[in-house]
Amino acid sequence: MTSEAALTDSETKELLCELLVAFHARGWASGTGGGICGPTSDGNLFLAPTGVHKERVRPEDFFVVSPADGRILAQPETPGLRPSECNAIFCLAARSRGARSVAHSHALAAVLAADLADGADSLEIRGLEMLKGIRGVTNRDVHRIPVIHNTAREPELVSQIASALADDRFAGSFAILVRDHGAYIWGRDVWEAKRHSEVYHFLFEAAVARQRR
Amino acid sequence: MTSEAALTDSETKELLCELLVAFHARGWASGTGGGICGPTSDGNLFLAPTGVHKERVRPEDFFVVSPADGRILAQPETPGLRPSECNAIFCLAARSRGARSVAHSHALAAVLAADLADGADSLEIRGLEMLKGIRGVTNRDVHRIPVIHNTAREPELVSQIASALADDRFAGSFAILVRDHGAYIWGRDVWEAKRHSEVYHFLFEAAVARQRR
Amino acid sequence: MTSEAALTDSETKELLCELLVAFHARGWASGTGGGICGPTSDGNLFLAPTGVHKERVRPEDFFVVSPADGRILAQPETPGLRPSECNAIFCLAARSRGARSVAHSHALAAVLAADLADGADSLEIRGLEMLKGIRGVTNRDVHRIPVIHNTAREPELVSQIASALADDRFAGSFAILVRDHGAYIWGRDVWEAKRHSEVYHFLFEAAVARQRR
Amino acid sequence: MTSEAALTDSETKELLCELLVAFHARGWASGTGGGICGPTSDGNLFLAPTGVHKERVRPEDFFVVSPADGRILAQPETPGLRPSECNAIFCLAARSRGARSVAHSHALAAVLAADLADGADSLEIRGLEMLKGIRGVTNRDVHRIPVIHNTAREPELVSQIASALADDRFAGSFAILVRDHGAYIWGRDVWEAKRHSEVYHFLFEAAVARQRR
Repeated sequence: MTSEAALTDSETKELLCELLVAFHARGWASGTGGGICGPTSDGNLFLAPTGVHKERVRPEDFFVVSPADGRILAQPETPGLRPSECNAIFCLAARSRGARSVAHSHALAAVLAADLADGADSLEIRGLEMLKGIRGVTNRDVHRIPVIHNTAREPELVSQIASALADDRFAGSFAILVRDHGAYIWGRDVWEAKRHSEVYHFLFEAAVARQRR
Repeated sequence: MTSEAALTDSETKELLCELLVAFHARGWASGTGGGICGPTSDGNLFLAPTGVHKERVRPEDFFVVSPADGRILAQPETPGLRPSECNAIFCLAARSRGARSVAHSHALAAVLAADLADGADSLEIRGLEMLKGIRGVTNRDVHRIPVIHNTAREPELVSQIASALADDRFAGSFAILVRDHGAYIWGRDVWEAKRHSEVYHFLFEAAVARQRR
Repeated sequence: MTSEAALTDSETKELLCELLVAFHARGWASGTGGGICGPTSDGNLFLAPTGVHKERVRPEDFFVVSPADGRILAQPETPGLRPSECNAIFCLAARSRGARSVAHSHALAAVLAADLADGADSLEIRGLEMLKGIRGVTNRDVHRIPVIHNTAREPELVSQIASALADDRFAGSFAILVRDHGAYIWGRDVWEAKRHSEVYHFLFEAAVARQRR
Repeated sequence: MTSEAALTDSETKELLCELLVAFHARGWASGTGGGICGPTSDGNLFLAPTGVHKERVRPEDFFVVSPADGRILAQPETPGLRPSECNAIFCLAARSRGARSVAHSHALAAVLAADLADGADSLEIRGLEMLKGIRGVTNRDVHRIPVIHNTAREPELVSQIASALADDRFAGSFAILVRDHGAYIWGRDVWEAKRHSEVYHFLFEAAVARQRR
């Protein structure tokens, strides 16, 4: 599959599995952490299961959920799986930002980038060509990424995420950093979610490295 | 093999080999270091050999040992191999913690994490979502990992490990750090040992990176 | 293909694809960033497309452009692609330095190495055997790499690059660092561009690591 | 091939190629740098060529040289290759230490480890279990690795290396660090050279990381 091709449902699931392998190899989905969703051709979302080693997820392991309310529309062929705890958050990003694909990263670089924000509710990134990899952003912009507090359980992040998504300061951001936890990163399709994932992780790493000097 | 499937003995050995490849690629089993064991279907342990390049271990290279006393119940098909020096430690973890799979890591991150403990007999990890990857641990807990001293030979670690495993402060830990050496990390099956291995190495790396700031 | 073989046009395109995979794996071409060109057998350049995930570029995705003026001589077989924004810069390097292959890297190490230059217009590298990997350079030389300022759009870099290429101080350099952005690295053929890419990235990493001590 | 098997000449060459791929992937042989040799069954050495991308070396690219004097006994099947500049050094290690396999690394970690020696002619490593990966060394030993100065051309290192190999302080070392350059690491066969290569690189990385704290 080239990155320009439109995807069938089968190809979408294969690509999501492939991305989970790549994310795991980079340390973004260690220890069954992380998650991903992508679009079905009829406007719903393929959602990966929770509690499994993400690099081993297969096309038959995906749930289909409605972005309207996270309701499960179709169970995976593989029995015994539970839907990702990211469900409510992924659906929220889908509804409020038109995200058709969302990745949840547990990368150490995301944790360390959130540390840089200290008490602030956002991290500003500037002075990097890589910013152009974010839709609508130029390399002259100051790009503000919301930084929220971690909660005991993932669905409890929803209200903070709703606030961040409604905040005009973050209208241009396709990512939310969660302190001590990681990041949610999205795009209008799987290819954009992939691009944004790589771009934001680069920005996190760059911010951390530059602060160390 | 998906991470939810029950494993046959043959699959267990294949998975252990696969994990050794992954561990070696990450630098957790360099220079013939490191080790692993996993459950046989009849309650014993498959044990990798010592003194070989771990990423090249094959299913026919495993010993079968009794967790009761480390006695060799079956030799590997491959001639000329010796059982891992981890034998006594793996069996101890099996008996006292119900560990059916144990990994021994020589990761630099484990060495550097043990360095952080300085003179103390434990390392405290807190404030990380990744803690939830450890069975029974929440992201609000202060997680205490015992840190013991290295000895001239691996079996001499047993008495310190027995003390750590008997220490109530470490009842929630599935890992023991050995100063200047690495870590033992276990789970109730190979999948949990894999998950815990990835989780603890992330925690080690995070602790080291945060201390550097 | 060994590194000594002369390449057919088909082999050149396959090798360029292979290098893009390797560059992406190393973080030099994240998020659709980066670019590459290589020689056609009739004196023109194969140019990768823009806006695609570079590790997924295939032989049928390359444009053919004239190094004389960047004019597109042949469209890729794959429809809907646009030529890399590096076009003008690659052609400039081809004309003024005889570069038949140029790589554009978005490596974090290149960004951090450019940071080391502070206000200066060049970075000096010395005291490294790896310098011998650059054509015409010895390990006793002080090697000067030009460092230019980033611009809003990539083609706007051309005038600065033209100045750097015309500057006698940089006659021995096969690379240009762009602040906050990355690097252009070239060679007389794809093999030399590959070697120079690996060498310069090593030098960037070494300079950054040594400065951190 | 498992790590215990005796090797045919064909297997030796295949294994050397495989190790070059692994070394390149780890950054120990970037930009055509690095080198390797291994034993022929009749007491000579298979020697990799110079000036080629090391991860692409194939079995038919090896020279056969006499360890007695570095004389070329057999040309590679592939035409147009030149023998590695490491030839004289590899043969010296073979004669004075019984090394039947030697690796030459251009790893950044080796350069940074040599930096730690400052003006001294050796680097002391202590307090690491990984030391046991070196033949004859325990984890209680202070292990001394000679550190020599770089020269304009690789064969000019021979006299310093001869001195280091003759120095009783370094009798237990299977490695020599070359400032600003890298390291030579050997073993009695390819498996031991592989093990020692992984062990010494770990030690270099550990020494550098611990010094950074």
